[in-house]
Amino acid sequence: MNYKIALIKGDGIGPEVVGEAVGVLEAVGKRFGHTFDFVDVLLGGCATDAVGKSYPDGTAEVCRACDAVLLGAVGGPKWGSDKPAEQRPETALLAIRKDLGLYANLRPATLRSAMAGACPLKKETAEKGIDLMMVRELTGGVYFGKRDRYQTEDRGVECTDLMAYSEKEIERIGRRAFELARLRRGKVSSVDKANVLETSRLWRSVMHRLAGEYPDVAYEDVLVDNCAMQLVRDPGQFDVVVTENMFGDILSDEASMVTGSIGLLPSASIGDAAPGLYEPIHGSAPDIAGQDKANPIATILSVAMMFRYSFQCAEEAAAIEHAVDAVLAEGWRTPDIAEPGAAAIGTREMGRLIREHI
Amino acid sequence: MNYKIALIKGDGIGPEVVGEAVGVLEAVGKRFGHTFDFVDVLLGGCATDAVGKSYPDGTAEVCRACDAVLLGAVGGPKWGSDKPAEQRPETALLAIRKDLGLYANLRPATLRSAMAGACPLKKETAEKGIDLMMVRELTGGVYFGKRDRYQTEDRGVECTDLMAYSEKEIERIGRRAFELARLRRGKVSSVDKANVLETSRLWRSVMHRLAGEYPDVAYEDVLVDNCAMQLVRDPGQFDVVVTENMFGDILSDEASMVTGSIGLLPSASIGDAAPGLYEPIHGSAPDIAGQDKANPIATILSVAMMFRYSFQCAEEAAAIEHAVDAVLAEGWRTPDIAEPGAAAIGTREMGRLIREHI
Ligand SMILES: CC(C)[C@H](C(=O)O)[C@@H](O)C(=O)O
Ligand SMILES: CC(C)[C@H](C(=O)O)[C@@H](O)C(=O)O
Repeated sequence: MNYKIALIKGDGIGPEVVGEAVGVLEAVGKRFGHTFDFVDVLLGGCATDAVGKSYPDGTAEVCRACDAVLLGAVGGPKWGSDKPAEQRPETALLAIRKDLGLYANLRPATLRSAMAGACPLKKETAEKGIDLMMVRELTGGVYFGKRDRYQTEDRGVECTDLMAYSEKEIERIGRRAFELARLRRGKVSSVDKANVLETSRLWRSVMHRLAGEYPDVAYEDVLVDNCAMQLVRDPGQFDVVVTENMFGDILSDEASMVTGSIGLLPSASIGDAAPGLYEPIHGSAPDIAGQDKANPIATILSVAMMFRYSFQCAEEAAAIEHAVDAVLAEGWRTPDIAEPGAAAIGTREMGRLIREHI
Repeated sequence: MNYKIALIKGDGIGPEVVGEAVGVLEAVGKRFGHTFDFVDVLLGGCATDAVGKSYPDGTAEVCRACDAVLLGAVGGPKWGSDKPAEQRPETALLAIRKDLGLYANLRPATLRSAMAGACPLKKETAEKGIDLMMVRELTGGVYFGKRDRYQTEDRGVECTDLMAYSEKEIERIGRRAFELARLRRGKVSSVDKANVLETSRLWRSVMHRLAGEYPDVAYEDVLVDNCAMQLVRDPGQFDVVVTENMFGDILSDEASMVTGSIGLLPSASIGDAAPGLYEPIHGSAPDIAGQDKANPIATILSVAMMFRYSFQCAEEAAAIEHAVDAVLAEGWRTPDIAEPGAAAIGTREMGRLIREHI
């Protein structure tokens, strides 16, 4: 097959890690007989510097003409919250999610066995393993709600953000979670705050209806505050965790840190139609940009997710994941995941080793 | 001094742990020359059973006539989210916070040295110690916003919850945080999502103004997703953490679990006028109710917070905290904190030992 892929290299270490991931794509193409066309797309702080806005006109159209989007990282202190919204990188992230209809954010939090030592939890907990999939609703809730700011008579300025969810929005993300659970260990944990929020009560009622349609999948409700605790106490209890946008933002970052492997974790943002967007969960790390120090593994594993979820190529995905595991098992480490004092290799060498294993 | 204290024994293990805490109050009274009048107040599931609603009329008036309120625990599966709002225990909790103006929730997350083994984090992290104070705004934000539910044409039912904050609300909780930091290690971390939410941008601007008024206190902004990670990676970096209601709900529970000592952690909810409300952070644990198995330490330490924050009696507070530390150092444990297989003592015996040390 020939696939057309939009590359958003972005800021900081973005271009370097995307470079290695493209190398891996090509290695997989050679082995499995795929070819690729790449289209560079400007987005983030580099777009602000080049054309004055972080989300240039026409971005969504270019991406929509591709089969998938690969994003390195966007953002940096240079384009901070003191800048107008259209110059800030996060504005572009939120806009592209909405414009491409990417309502499902899949964030695996996996402790790869070679990395057990990096887990910040007790050895006994790390040894039990962590392999959960966070399914975060990505285009609704309070992050996309109507905002307001006004002067009051007695309370100074007041601001509001509206948290809204419809049955339709909840149902489509819920179905994703149940379908994913069927391909995994068959359990869905739905996180809400139904004892307080109206949106959460709607969320819970839709999830209960879906649970009835998937009797082969085990289902539980978890309150968000309890989930924040359980992720620390016993993350191994979770398989698929599904939740709304803001809870998902907080809990998926917590779950990632619990694995101790931020530099290794990929993500997929998908909708009902092509293209999906794939990106590492780490940031742009401007302090180490351009120094051949960045860890490309999370971006390379994002390419594995691209094969699995956008191209329906499970074998290609597994080949990438096995190559990463093999290189880690041989002891190769970039500086971010090296034991203190141990020798480390650079971005390019890590990319080369992984390609060699494909 | 004579103090009038409202006792909300509540549900499950509530009556037992309040019983031991009252014993400790009386021991402190004897040593330091205070006397107490107690008023029983019905609230929670037990109130629903007795009078049909979890927050009986007149509750706030009775509490307002007291110098402080001590609460055991409310809630249980018997009064779940299938019940009408006025019968649910959490409705009563939210109402009493609002009616008494308890806008500041102080939740210490402390790893007491005798309990280092219970910490779910790696030994190296636990050994560095954890001693942070979460300051959660408790009467504003999305947990108290206007709610709505309506039918749409194309998206099914839709629900909304409004997140609102005024300058006045933010300033008063912010001042609490800075004042507390002055009495501790002099650092405030303010948590928000200012890159997305309008309420967070207002929050941040007010906090920056206050930071200017407290030049002796170190100040930092932390995004909520990053804070959820840092609490796992390195909780020892935090002193006072201040945040809005919902973020505080999630992060304070996460921080508590990070200490591994849920059964030991107290809380204070205070406003500008008396009375403050003091309660353990653990739940009502109906499965062990009435069996002399509950850990009374969190409620006893809540009494210490009562002396410190409502009665301005620092010495009495310290006497209670030292008594608890001494009993733990001697190795006494209730079942919830005993090492697997080790012998444990009951609720009453734990209360007696702590009283003996006062
Ligand atoms: C930058 C920000 C808008 C974004 C979010 O919260 O969605 C980020 O934190 C993420 O999780 O991708
Ligand atoms: C029961 C619920 C309303 C409450 C809250 O979220 O405020 C509880 O979780 C708490 O933290 O005290």
